[in-house]
Amino acid sequence: MPTTVNAYSAPSAGADLIPTTIERRDVGPDDVRIDIKFAGICHSDIHTVRGEWGPQSYPLAPGHEIAGIVAEVGSNVSKYAVGDRVGVGCMVNSCGECKNCLAGEEQYCLRGNTGTYGAEDRDGSITQGGYSTQVVVTQDFVLGIPEGIELDVAAPLLCAGITTYSPLKHWGAGPGTKVAVVGLGGLGHMAVKQAAAMGAEVTVLSQSLKKQEDGLRLGAKHYYATSDENTFNDLAGTFDLIINTVSASLPISDYLGLLSLDGALVSVGAPAEPLPVNAFALIGGRRSFAGSMIGGIRETQQMLDFCAEHHLGAEVEVIPADKINEAYERVMASDVRYRFVIDTATLN
Amino acid sequence: MPTTVNAYSAPSAGADLIPTTIERRDVGPDDVRIDIKFAGICHSDIHTVRGEWGPQSYPLAPGHEIAGIVAEVGSNVSKYAVGDRVGVGCMVNSCGECKNCLAGEEQYCLRGNTGTYGAEDRDGSITQGGYSTQVVVTQDFVLGIPEGIELDVAAPLLCAGITTYSPLKHWGAGPGTKVAVVGLGGLGHMAVKQAAAMGAEVTVLSQSLKKQEDGLRLGAKHYYATSDENTFNDLAGTFDLIINTVSASLPISDYLGLLSLDGALVSVGAPAEPLPVNAFALIGGRRSFAGSMIGGIRETQQMLDFCAEHHLGAEVEVIPADKINEAYERVMASDVRYRFVIDTATLN
Repeated sequence: MPTTVNAYSAPSAGADLIPTTIERRDVGPDDVRIDIKFAGICHSDIHTVRGEWGPQSYPLAPGHEIAGIVAEVGSNVSKYAVGDRVGVGCMVNSCGECKNCLAGEEQYCLRGNTGTYGAEDRDGSITQGGYSTQVVVTQDFVLGIPEGIELDVAAPLLCAGITTYSPLKHWGAGPGTKVAVVGLGGLGHMAVKQAAAMGAEVTVLSQSLKKQEDGLRLGAKHYYATSDENTFNDLAGTFDLIINTVSASLPISDYLGLLSLDGALVSVGAPAEPLPVNAFALIGGRRSFAGSMIGGIRETQQMLDFCAEHHLGAEVEVIPADKINEAYERVMASDVRYRFVIDTATLN
Repeated sequence: MPTTVNAYSAPSAGADLIPTTIERRDVGPDDVRIDIKFAGICHSDIHTVRGEWGPQSYPLAPGHEIAGIVAEVGSNVSKYAVGDRVGVGCMVNSCGECKNCLAGEEQYCLRGNTGTYGAEDRDGSITQGGYSTQVVVTQDFVLGIPEGIELDVAAPLLCAGITTYSPLKHWGAGPGTKVAVVGLGGLGHMAVKQAAAMGAEVTVLSQSLKKQEDGLRLGAKHYYATSDENTFNDLAGTFDLIINTVSASLPISDYLGLLSLDGALVSVGAPAEPLPVNAFALIGGRRSFAGSMIGGIRETQQMLDFCAEHHLGAEVEVIPADKINEAYERVMASDVRYRFVIDTATLN
C-alpha cells in the first residue's frame, strides 16, 4: 500500500505550485523511507516545473536537495538505520551496470540516471521530488549527513554543493592553485567556500561589486567586477581553474583568456544556445573549456564529509511552504543569499 | 660579417615566391650554423606569406620544418658538433625566464616565442625561414635528428610531427585508449602514425573515404566519412581523445558528442571565426574542448627520438625550389600526400 504524503506541486506548466498530496511506494527490501525535514530550491526546479526545459508530466513536485531522517528501512538495508540523518540529491537510481556507473559516476549513466523528480522511474512511474514530507529511495542513492552540519544548511549541498565540489576536485583545486568562481549565487557561494577550504587562492568574478563583502567573508581573496573592462586585462593568464556557475550566455573566449597555461574553464550550467569559442584562445595556452554535471554518489558522500569537516554549510533562508512561489520570483531576480530552503514541517 | 645565402621568398603579400638571397648572422658563441638540406611546406607558410594572418615584413622567406647538417658552431656550443644531423622547428628563441619557458614550454613563452620566420628577433631584425641554404640558430632551439630517420622525412616532424605528438602525449594516448584523428593531411597523417605507435586504437574521421586505404596503412584501425550522417550516431560516446587537425570551421558540438566520459577534443588548428559550442555537450560527459600549439623544445626532441625508434617519418613528396608556387596551389587544393618538402640543393 503506497503512502499518501503532503507535498507542494505544480498542476501544469507555468502554474503556481499548490499544496497537494503525492504517493510514496512501499519500502522495498533495498529502500529507505526518509522523513524529509528540509528541501532546497534549486534554479533548475523552476525551469523544470515551468516546462522551460521540455515537456513534463503534471502534477509535478520538484526538489532534489533533500535532507531528513530515516523513518523506515527495508530488510536488505545495511547502510542506514532508523533515526539516521540522510540526504538525497539529483538522482534516485541508475543502471548500475554501465562503464560509468561501475566507475562510480552514476550521474553520467550511459542509460540515463533517474532524476529525483520528473523522470520515469524503473517501475514506469514519474518520480516526485523533495517538496514533500517523505520520500522512498533505494539505499545506494541515499547519502549520510555527518554530525556537524545542520540539516537545513546541508540540504543545498546535495545539488549545489556537489555540482561545485566535483569539478574543483577533478581539476585539482588545492594549495598553490588559483581558482576563479564566476557568479556568486547558490552554486558560486559553495564553490568559494569549498575552493578556499581546499587551500586554493579564490577570486570571485561577478557582474558588479555588490556582493564583494560576502564573497570575501565566504573565503575569496579577491573580487572583481566583470562589468569593468579592465578586469579582463588585469587578470589575463591568471587562473588554473575557473568554475563558471552562470547559466546565462557569457563571452566565453574573454574568460578563456584569464586562464594560465593548461588552465580549464569548467561550466556547470549553460544557456540553451551555443557559446562562440575562439579556438585560438584555447590553442595559445593549451587551455580547456569543459563541463561538469553534479557528481557520483561516492563523491557526493566525500563532499558531505569534507563539508562537515570544514563546517561548510550553505548560506540559507529557510521559508515555509506557502512562500515557495514568492521564493521562485526572488530566485529569478537573483534576490537570495544564497539558497532558499523549505521547512517541510510547514507542509503538514 | 653576415653571410649571404640563397633563398626563396615572397616579395610582397600575395605575390609568388621568387629566388633571392638573404643574410644570415655570424655564428655567435651560442649559435649553430646549419646547412639546410630539406624544408617542409606547412599550410601556415602559405597563410603567413600571403598576409592572410596579418601584415608581414617583406621580402619574407618562410619555412619552419628544417632538417640539415651542422656546418659551424660557436665557442660555447656543447650540444652539437660540425656534421651532426639537426633540425629547427617553429621557434628560434624565447625569453627563457618566464614560468612557461622554465617549464620547458617555450612555445607558450609569456613574452612570446620568436617564430622561425616573420618574427622580430631579439636584435630587432626579422627572422627568415627555412626555404634557404643555411640558417643560424642558438643551440637551445636546435634539435638533434637521430639516425634512422632520413632528413627529408624528418623535416615535417619539426612542425607537423610535434603539433600532433604533444597533445597525444599530454592527453594520454596509449594502450587501451581510443583516439580519433579528424582530417588526414600533413598533420593528420602524423597523428595517425604516432597514436598507433603509442598503442592507441586509432580512427580517422575524414570528409570522405577517398584516403581510407592510406589511413589504414598508416596505422588506423577504423575510417569513417564525416559526410555520412550515420557516423555521428554510430560513434557517439566512443573516443577518449579526438585530435582535430582541420582548420576549417567544423560542427564542434557534433564531434564533442563522439567523446566518452572525460574525453577531450583537442584542436591544433582553427578558423578565424569563433566556433559555436553547445556547453551541454561538455557538461553531459565532463568533456573538454581544448587546444594545443606545437610543443616545447624538450618535448620536440622526445618526439624525434620516439619517431626514430618507431621508424615514423612523414610521407613526403620532395620537390625542387622552382615548384614551390605550384606546391602551394596543390596544398590549398589538398592535393598532397602528405607533405611537400623542398630539396634545398635546388636553391643553389
